[in-house]
Amino acid sequence: MGKRIVLALGGNALGSNLPEQMKAVKKTASAIADLIEQGNELVIVHGNGPQVGMIQDAMTELVRSDPVRHIPCPLSVCVAMSQGYIGYDLQNALREELLDRGIEQGVATVLTQVEVNPGDPAFSAPTKPIGSFMTKDEAERMVAERDYQVMEDAGRGWRRVVASPEPVGIVEIDTIRSLVETNHTVVACGGGGIPVFKTEGHHLKGAAAVIDKDYAAERLAEQLNADCLIILTAVEKVAVNFNRPDQKWLDVLTADEARTYIGQGQFAPGSMLPKVQAAVRFVESAPGREALITLLEKARDGIEGRTGTRFVEARPAT
Amino acid sequence: MGKRIVLALGGNALGSNLPEQMKAVKKTASAIADLIEQGNELVIVHGNGPQVGMIQDAMTELVRSDPVRHIPCPLSVCVAMSQGYIGYDLQNALREELLDRGIEQGVATVLTQVEVNPGDPAFSAPTKPIGSFMTKDEAERMVAERDYQVMEDAGRGWRRVVASPEPVGIVEIDTIRSLVETNHTVVACGGGGIPVFKTEGHHLKGAAAVIDKDYAAERLAEQLNADCLIILTAVEKVAVNFNRPDQKWLDVLTADEARTYIGQGQFAPGSMLPKVQAAVRFVESAPGREALITLLEKARDGIEGRTGTRFVEARPAT
Repeated sequence: MGKRIVLALGGNALGSNLPEQMKAVKKTASAIADLIEQGNELVIVHGNGPQVGMIQDAMTELVRSDPVRHIPCPLSVCVAMSQGYIGYDLQNALREELLDRGIEQGVATVLTQVEVNPGDPAFSAPTKPIGSFMTKDEAERMVAERDYQVMEDAGRGWRRVVASPEPVGIVEIDTIRSLVETNHTVVACGGGGIPVFKTEGHHLKGAAAVIDKDYAAERLAEQLNADCLIILTAVEKVAVNFNRPDQKWLDVLTADEARTYIGQGQFAPGSMLPKVQAAVRFVESAPGREALITLLEKARDGIEGRTGTRFVEARPAT
Repeated sequence: MGKRIVLALGGNALGSNLPEQMKAVKKTASAIADLIEQGNELVIVHGNGPQVGMIQDAMTELVRSDPVRHIPCPLSVCVAMSQGYIGYDLQNALREELLDRGIEQGVATVLTQVEVNPGDPAFSAPTKPIGSFMTKDEAERMVAERDYQVMEDAGRGWRRVVASPEPVGIVEIDTIRSLVETNHTVVACGGGGIPVFKTEGHHLKGAAAVIDKDYAAERLAEQLNADCLIILTAVEKVAVNFNRPDQKWLDVLTADEARTYIGQGQFAPGSMLPKVQAAVRFVESAPGREALITLLEKARDGIEGRTGTRFVEARPAT
């Protein structure tokens, strides 16, 4: 019996430059095709950290090369470009893999905007580093000229930091739903989606922010009424006491158990923490919803219950 | 009675940089919304000349700034990025305009690949200039290092030239059709589409080419079984003896008449000629199909038969 699945791809599913990406997406496509072959409906959300940084750097170099002709490119536009940059390779690899297996199915990349709240506290405390390293002088100039916020990054230099607000809603949700319902595998909310906020009337304005792709995938899964949210990452299971002698891999986690571990600081912020939080949020959003965190290569085994960490609302009464 | 319309937007519908684009798309959105308000189904194809050139320049500057870390970005990937760059503004302006008019309708940008034939004669004689001007030395280095073909451009310097092959088929045609049939206005085949050719098996490989957006729109209109192809440009009607004392604006043109004028060299290559050729191709592709060339601001009047140059397969017998 097929499930509707929203799948969030980790950075390792894409590589960090174009040659790596073209190679990585083949393996990624094979793992996704396994799930489609099982009869599931798939919507794919991917990150864009290295890619949007590269695009922003390129646009910055363009302005440096000719400051009269060019103006800085807003971050939201860079995210839009990264959706094209990544979606093109990802949808092609997937299309090829499905055709090789004799599966007739459309594969589509939908340019996706995700609404955020201008009052989100993230905007007053930007924490997400993007783009390349700068010297202190360059960083100070960016602050003065472009109103950037910057941060010294672990002795490696200065970087721009931007807000990472919560996703409120997927603007193109009806488009994505229409395509899922007409036998398409959809690549959507790339890079967490183009962050926009509503201004007067119906106007959407780009926000200088990046949305966490796991939170965006979770929001999308809720709005699509998905059965399952799968978050793929670099480990097969979630662990507590990670890298300590008493490390323990987890097979099943209830929302309450996960919250307890979160309270103990078991999961690294910016890494496993948002994944666990997204999983908890999804299983609590409606009865019967499940989430799974595992390795890309283990997605199929995971959905069949053989590995990964499965999140459930509560344990069945025994 | 609503028609299914494929609309090709000229360069003036987008402007040539980001501030111009954000302003231009508002006017463009209003003209498109007029047609939707009349009950028509719309699929929008746009050009990307200045935008893909700008993106390619940015990627070139990025490589210049750090040749160890970065590699040149293939043109097909730059086209994919331009679809995100333009689609984001265009779909938003249209979404806003429709909501302001109380029209509930999805607006979606579909990342679109267009298949070309690797044996297309265009590949052996590239003619389409892209990107910024180079000195002779820079041009020669690009030829040596990247296998570029270059051309001296009217005393203004050297530019890369690429092939402009014929569109064979729209890879994402089923996606576009699904969205049209579920009440969406679709932005597709941006910049003429990401040019790809089939290699072994089902593999699609990006081509270093740009496809003429009018030809791509025509191919899309055929494959979508559209009623009408509208090509918007900088003049209200097509003229013969253009800019001469005996200049004559044309209201209706049959395919045969158009071919006669083409034979007389009446239409400028790279400008009005591909538009007229696309229009002729479409009206001859199946009975009852019409094409229209007019100004953006006159699209509504044109579709109602009050202006523009209308193309028909043949004049009705009198």
